[in-house]
Amino acid sequence: DFNIIFDSFIELLPAKNGEEPTMQFLLEVVEILTSYIKKTFDKSTKVLDFHYPHQLLEGIEGFSLELPDQPESLEQILVDCRDTLKYGVRTGHPRFFNQLSTGIDIVGLAGEWLTSTANTNMFTYEIAPVFVLMEQLTLKKMREIVGWPNGEGDGIFSPGGAISNMYSVMIARYKYFPEIKTKGMAAAPRLVLFTSELSHYSIKKASAALGFGTDNLILLNTDERGRVIPADLESKVTEGYVPVYVNATAGTTVFGAFDPINDIADICEKYNMWLHVDAAWGGGLLMSSKHRHKMSGIHRANSVTWNPHKMMGVPLQCSAILVRERGLLQGCNSMCAGYLFQPDKHYDVTYDTGDKAIQCGRHVDIFKFWLMWKAKGTVGFEQQIDKCLDLSAYLYSKIKNREGFQMPQHTNVCFWYLPLSLRHLPDGEEKRERLHKVAPKIKAMMMESGTTMVGYQPQGDQVNFFRMVISNPAATRSDIDFLVEEIERLGQDL
Amino acid sequence: DFNIIFDSFIELLPAKNGEEPTMQFLLEVVEILTSYIKKTFDKSTKVLDFHYPHQLLEGIEGFSLELPDQPESLEQILVDCRDTLKYGVRTGHPRFFNQLSTGIDIVGLAGEWLTSTANTNMFTYEIAPVFVLMEQLTLKKMREIVGWPNGEGDGIFSPGGAISNMYSVMIARYKYFPEIKTKGMAAAPRLVLFTSELSHYSIKKASAALGFGTDNLILLNTDERGRVIPADLESKVTEGYVPVYVNATAGTTVFGAFDPINDIADICEKYNMWLHVDAAWGGGLLMSSKHRHKMSGIHRANSVTWNPHKMMGVPLQCSAILVRERGLLQGCNSMCAGYLFQPDKHYDVTYDTGDKAIQCGRHVDIFKFWLMWKAKGTVGFEQQIDKCLDLSAYLYSKIKNREGFQMPQHTNVCFWYLPLSLRHLPDGEEKRERLHKVAPKIKAMMMESGTTMVGYQPQGDQVNFFRMVISNPAATRSDIDFLVEEIERLGQDL
Repeated sequence: DFNIIFDSFIELLPAKNGEEPTMQFLLEVVEILTSYIKKTFDKSTKVLDFHYPHQLLEGIEGFSLELPDQPESLEQILVDCRDTLKYGVRTGHPRFFNQLSTGIDIVGLAGEWLTSTANTNMFTYEIAPVFVLMEQLTLKKMREIVGWPNGEGDGIFSPGGAISNMYSVMIARYKYFPEIKTKGMAAAPRLVLFTSELSHYSIKKASAALGFGTDNLILLNTDERGRVIPADLESKVTEGYVPVYVNATAGTTVFGAFDPINDIADICEKYNMWLHVDAAWGGGLLMSSKHRHKMSGIHRANSVTWNPHKMMGVPLQCSAILVRERGLLQGCNSMCAGYLFQPDKHYDVTYDTGDKAIQCGRHVDIFKFWLMWKAKGTVGFEQQIDKCLDLSAYLYSKIKNREGFQMPQHTNVCFWYLPLSLRHLPDGEEKRERLHKVAPKIKAMMMESGTTMVGYQPQGDQVNFFRMVISNPAATRSDIDFLVEEIERLGQDL
Repeated sequence: DFNIIFDSFIELLPAKNGEEPTMQFLLEVVEILTSYIKKTFDKSTKVLDFHYPHQLLEGIEGFSLELPDQPESLEQILVDCRDTLKYGVRTGHPRFFNQLSTGIDIVGLAGEWLTSTANTNMFTYEIAPVFVLMEQLTLKKMREIVGWPNGEGDGIFSPGGAISNMYSVMIARYKYFPEIKTKGMAAAPRLVLFTSELSHYSIKKASAALGFGTDNLILLNTDERGRVIPADLESKVTEGYVPVYVNATAGTTVFGAFDPINDIADICEKYNMWLHVDAAWGGGLLMSSKHRHKMSGIHRANSVTWNPHKMMGVPLQCSAILVRERGLLQGCNSMCAGYLFQPDKHYDVTYDTGDKAIQCGRHVDIFKFWLMWKAKGTVGFEQQIDKCLDLSAYLYSKIKNREGFQMPQHTNVCFWYLPLSLRHLPDGEEKRERLHKVAPKIKAMMMESGTTMVGYQPQGDQVNFFRMVISNPAATRSDIDFLVEEIERLGQDL
């Protein structure tokens, strides 16, 4: 019997009479989690307690990562939970700015806990009736917000923006060359895709994976603000290949630049190309009447990637691919596997989404988002987005003329910090080389002191700079102030 | 300030002084969840409370799926949580047998709650130090169990078996024709893939998506037990195309058949083809010294898909792709995006896994599995697997000679139930047609009565039959008895 399987588990459900110890165990876990949450929002808590890989691998203060042959006690399991959190990164901390997705939304979190407890799968109505309908309603609402008439179209939640972007390329290919599904890429002429030189690398990954080849992804030049130059697209639509797909980015990863969608849409219409808008990062702005103009023309897109797990603060993972034309997602991916999607069920099987996906089983990503929408309303998301953008503007104005700071960009606030020793150096190779090392060094010191975290990277011919993104509603002006001062504190004498 | 954003949220963290209401809200959610768990393991609870899509869409007893403009109160959010669970399916119920993944593992569930609370991402060590190391250690252990020397090799957790299988095809292609990454499928001769006619449809989806075309996926004939006939593979390796990849299945979706891996491996070696083993379902048997012989030869595979979220009972999603040769996963997928994976960090960046994946952000799927392994030990997983297979054997022996039952297969126990009216009909088209309708009808009655759930499907020339899989450690012999009697009760007079 299961009761005798492992000592520690005897006490838990589903073993007989395991209710009390089970509830007690779960409540102790929740106690660990809520205490973690409380501390995360307390700014005196460190963002992280950094250790090098070898330190964690060797084991610290009894925390062992090794997998045992024999069961551990439930008490030890609780200690393992505490230690895991202890050596991790508090991505919900108001001073954590390292990623596009940050924050702990309490209602979203409750939604995730419920999702894990329900432990089901999105592929059929039979197995996830409520979740399937929530997904359908939410996708329709998102398409309405994009601006497609009556929210018509199709879509699906995928495991992330890269996969959503991959879907867009697959669907475009299917639209123009449906025979590739059966005959392969050999059946088509030379197909090319276009994207900004500053777009997310997932378009390149999709080109490689789907058999186009990265050589057939043509990169478009950008202007001084990081936006695609439409004339460059038109000049590259030449003979010798069949142009099928253009990706415009709404909120590039590094600069947060918004490509001019309307101008690109004109060219796509002229040459009969698929227009995808990668709004993984920028999509949240659609919720804001103040900021959505940055994505003007998005309703002309054939497909849109929009990740609520980024600017809208939904717990990871929550990414949608939206498609304007119905039927393509199904046509592109369906294999009509009758053994999984039986047509002779007693309910309307058009609610079964499984054959639209490249996945078979699919995690329930919708519930937390739906629950947050219930709790905030559309107006709440709008205010949340506006607040994040206000904070970006605050940072921009704060460092604009500040001694030692320089900015290549300001949608995402990208900036260099120049230590005193560099400020009066003449521009040139030596300054560039030394400046390139500053951000990694400050970041390393920042992580070791554990006080805050912000990303850096080079881009084009610009040496390493900090990229500041704000998507955590818990952040305030004082956290922005703290970051700037911390950079100065750590970096001024480098 | 965030405090004024939405009425209901004022009280929760990160709003000022929101600790108490936040903890109270989360504890109320946990109360709903634990009460759901208790009831799920209580066999007098229904497996589901079925409603048709239109009923849920119209709203039942005040439960509205619509997304509001204005925020709801926290009290209503709690009601929404209760309603969502109420109208869902209890996949953890001991009498739920509909899917390959079932059950609620309490420690796994605790792991998922912690994962959502940590809300981080697998792409860099920087952002998920502990989880990245856990993944590395666990993948190594899995490779050891597969039988590769010292657990050498590579791997990654992916969002499900279909994506893991897609990885295997991509990696095989990269191994033999690395230039496809840049030049596309046009750069290669006609490449073909092989898989069983009874294999999972994800191999077909991968052929379509990756640009091979489904015509270039050659299906292999199977024997009376659903296993690939190796001679058929050898006879199909002919001139006119380049054979690159063979998928052998360890535990087919419907029959639970195990392809003869050693015989297939011989042919793969002879013709220099990649051998992938799709052990998404069967992988768990590797933990059992009693049953692992069914996968004899798996150590000869070049890659293996193994989903701990199936037979090992880990909460969804938890799927691994394991690769014997190091470097291929990275080589195949890396785009060296310096803006995301900076080489000038202050720790060993080989721990950053992001550029190995087709995803960018990647959900933390490892922690729940790692925590379960801690709690059960390797021995615990072994006993759990053995128990599930014992129950299958029990069902098999129970219905083997039982009036009204017939079986096409018994690894997954697949069987027909014949109502009294069909039992004495002569074999022939009329009987087939009538029998084909029996399983869907019984299943519909079963769902409407909500007492238990089991899948059905046709396969090849066999009309609809039930497929019984057992992966829920909470199931007992009395639940098996119940299922058989319930089928008789609902179906005998059809």
